[in-house]
Amino acid sequence: PSEKVAHFEKDVWSIFTPLAAETKAINLGQGFMNFNPPDFVQDAANGAISDVAANQYSHPKGRPRLRKALADSYSPLFGRELDPENEIIVTAGANEGMFATFAGFLDEGSEVICMEPFFDQYISNITMNGGVPVYVPLRAPAKAANENISSHEWKLDINELRSKITDKTRMIVINTPHNPIGKVFDEEELIEIGKVAEEHNLLILSDEVYDRLYYEPAKQVRIATLKDFWKRTITVGSGGKSFAATGWRVGWLIGPSELIQYSLAAHTRVVFCVNSPCQEALAIGLEKTNQIPYFQNQIEAYTKKRQILSSVFEELGLPYTVPDGSYFILVNTTKVQFPQDYPFPAVLDSRAKDFKLCYWLAKEIGVVAIPPSEFYSKENRELAADFARFAFCKSDDVLEDAVKALRKLA
Amino acid sequence: PSEKVAHFEKDVWSIFTPLAAETKAINLGQGFMNFNPPDFVQDAANGAISDVAANQYSHPKGRPRLRKALADSYSPLFGRELDPENEIIVTAGANEGMFATFAGFLDEGSEVICMEPFFDQYISNITMNGGVPVYVPLRAPAKAANENISSHEWKLDINELRSKITDKTRMIVINTPHNPIGKVFDEEELIEIGKVAEEHNLLILSDEVYDRLYYEPAKQVRIATLKDFWKRTITVGSGGKSFAATGWRVGWLIGPSELIQYSLAAHTRVVFCVNSPCQEALAIGLEKTNQIPYFQNQIEAYTKKRQILSSVFEELGLPYTVPDGSYFILVNTTKVQFPQDYPFPAVLDSRAKDFKLCYWLAKEIGVVAIPPSEFYSKENRELAADFARFAFCKSDDVLEDAVKALRKLA
Ligand SMILES: CSCCC(=O)C(=O)O
Ligand SMILES: CSCCC(=O)C(=O)O
Repeated sequence: PSEKVAHFEKDVWSIFTPLAAETKAINLGQGFMNFNPPDFVQDAANGAISDVAANQYSHPKGRPRLRKALADSYSPLFGRELDPENEIIVTAGANEGMFATFAGFLDEGSEVICMEPFFDQYISNITMNGGVPVYVPLRAPAKAANENISSHEWKLDINELRSKITDKTRMIVINTPHNPIGKVFDEEELIEIGKVAEEHNLLILSDEVYDRLYYEPAKQVRIATLKDFWKRTITVGSGGKSFAATGWRVGWLIGPSELIQYSLAAHTRVVFCVNSPCQEALAIGLEKTNQIPYFQNQIEAYTKKRQILSSVFEELGLPYTVPDGSYFILVNTTKVQFPQDYPFPAVLDSRAKDFKLCYWLAKEIGVVAIPPSEFYSKENRELAADFARFAFCKSDDVLEDAVKALRKLA
Repeated sequence: PSEKVAHFEKDVWSIFTPLAAETKAINLGQGFMNFNPPDFVQDAANGAISDVAANQYSHPKGRPRLRKALADSYSPLFGRELDPENEIIVTAGANEGMFATFAGFLDEGSEVICMEPFFDQYISNITMNGGVPVYVPLRAPAKAANENISSHEWKLDINELRSKITDKTRMIVINTPHNPIGKVFDEEELIEIGKVAEEHNLLILSDEVYDRLYYEPAKQVRIATLKDFWKRTITVGSGGKSFAATGWRVGWLIGPSELIQYSLAAHTRVVFCVNSPCQEALAIGLEKTNQIPYFQNQIEAYTKKRQILSSVFEELGLPYTVPDGSYFILVNTTKVQFPQDYPFPAVLDSRAKDFKLCYWLAKEIGVVAIPPSEFYSKENRELAADFARFAFCKSDDVLEDAVKALRKLA
């Protein structure tokens, strides 16, 4: 194998999603829905499947109707008239959009600032493109060990970030709402970060795939809309997260033409274009959201889901981070007792304690969660050893079942 | 931008596909169909869109039903029992499968043998992963200037190939049926190539995306089935090409677990997984092909299409390569007169004469073809300056219309 892939461990998703299937445990692991995209999006997909043009290659930029719908939907949110021809690219999921952006901007040794914890794919996507991730922690307040915290209490030390910048730094990655913490960065925080980017002429890659999922009183703020950060920011979005269709692999990049042209150059070579019928369906879906309060209703539904799931951690006295956005709850599992001599598979040998806890949870409690040490650099994995991440992007009845199963921990 | 993308020119597809739309010319350029996937595949896609699991993330390897269907369909063709768990990966189009394989095996400076002409994406996919393409020509016989040739007369000089191997060579890329030539490599040719790979312990990446499209008396031979080349070969396939659904972006890799695990490691990071509903639909489609002679009928239909389109080049006295496979005809356009002072757009300035001819063809004759100098290294572009590639993956009536339009060249 190449040096690029030789050091990869098995990814957490390819361990825990199959484990869920095998154990028939309730799957609150990987963040996907157990319900369908809304009817109007399914109908649109069915229509696309019998539309000749919608079954063949799209332009690498994305289908015109989807780019137009994205421009119409996001222009008010960005406070500017987005140009569907030059400022929007449709990618094979948000993931490939980020990969293509790293490919488009990183050279051998380019440094990229990542906040830790991070969504794990960032790191491989950076190193595969010759980049070097440089970590800055998001820190929870000290009370974390025994009390709930708000995701907003996880803080970045801006001076610490500034101290990590070198002449090789090329990019800062932001993730808001944040996976796995659920933190929604506020305007002040984003301005601080943006100013550092400005001082050092860095690109900002803002992963906002959960931008439609934030909970009152939190509100999604987009760094691209602050000061004149637009000109250095590429914002990442996700059709799968916004429309309960994580398997469709349709994401997008929004940013100034002078920047995203290089993401496009890479994207065109990596995948050429994105699944056409699902692009068409999401275009029609987005158009519909102008007439119906789909996103608003979705927020209400997810607010309730957050409530259902978090109630059991209250009951059990397991402190957790109350997420302001995304659909994950990070739970402190220090109090959970499990046998250290359980027959764990060899694939967990090299991993932190949370992998073993989550394995045991799946096998013995019947609920799958994700071990968040996957979201830390190897050096810092121990910080996550006593945590587990539970997803609540599931139907209410499944969440109720999970609550019942988790009560066995009492 | 990164060095990886800074040198990219605008790709030929993003010039000529929009030109077709703009001029309303008959599009025989990029190889996509103007007809739908078969009904049984469309029906399956509609079914998948209302299947909860088929709308969410798949395993990075691909959906189990598709891997099983691929194993069932390809095991007889490979003469071995393919293991759907370990020997098949579903990729975001064949393109991403090849990208992931280059990512999985190439280090900085690794050399990859490519036959020239080549499908253009190979080159960027190699260089983006640190590799260096090393070209070996496929040569047409001398009579090419005034007589038709069979694609089989394009020959590789195996000693020339051997002379290009260095201690940095890691891989040989084969493409059969070949784009743009239509050559289907025979057993003898493949054994010669495979032996070189064996002598130097090289990997073989065999791009067989047109494997269901070959014309009598040609027959698809798979290098993975010859000698014991299996153990060093990764074979690439395409759902889009096999089922008239180029926009679905579902391809696959078949090969020994010890090899494709590294393609999988890269693929998992680049795109994570592939569009789920279309995977499910192609699984059901492939299952159906056990009961109905779909692939056989398709070959018959394409044989007729080849006949319709080639007839006009006969009429016009423009010599061409008769393809044994794929759906392209490479035509010698030396005799076609067009004004050198035509108002060509600036994007063509740096390109060979065939780009100008094809632009003029679209504007004045109303037919889009692809300039094949895109398929040559910069040094050798002039070899293609008097050729144009026409696709015949179109409905018979569109091909008839193209024939009428092309008669204007007489
Ligand atoms: C490949 S997992 C995609 C992101 C997500 O859903 C998760 O973090 O669970
Ligand atoms: C990105 S084009 C894909 C291959 C093809 O169809 C062509 O060569 O025309």
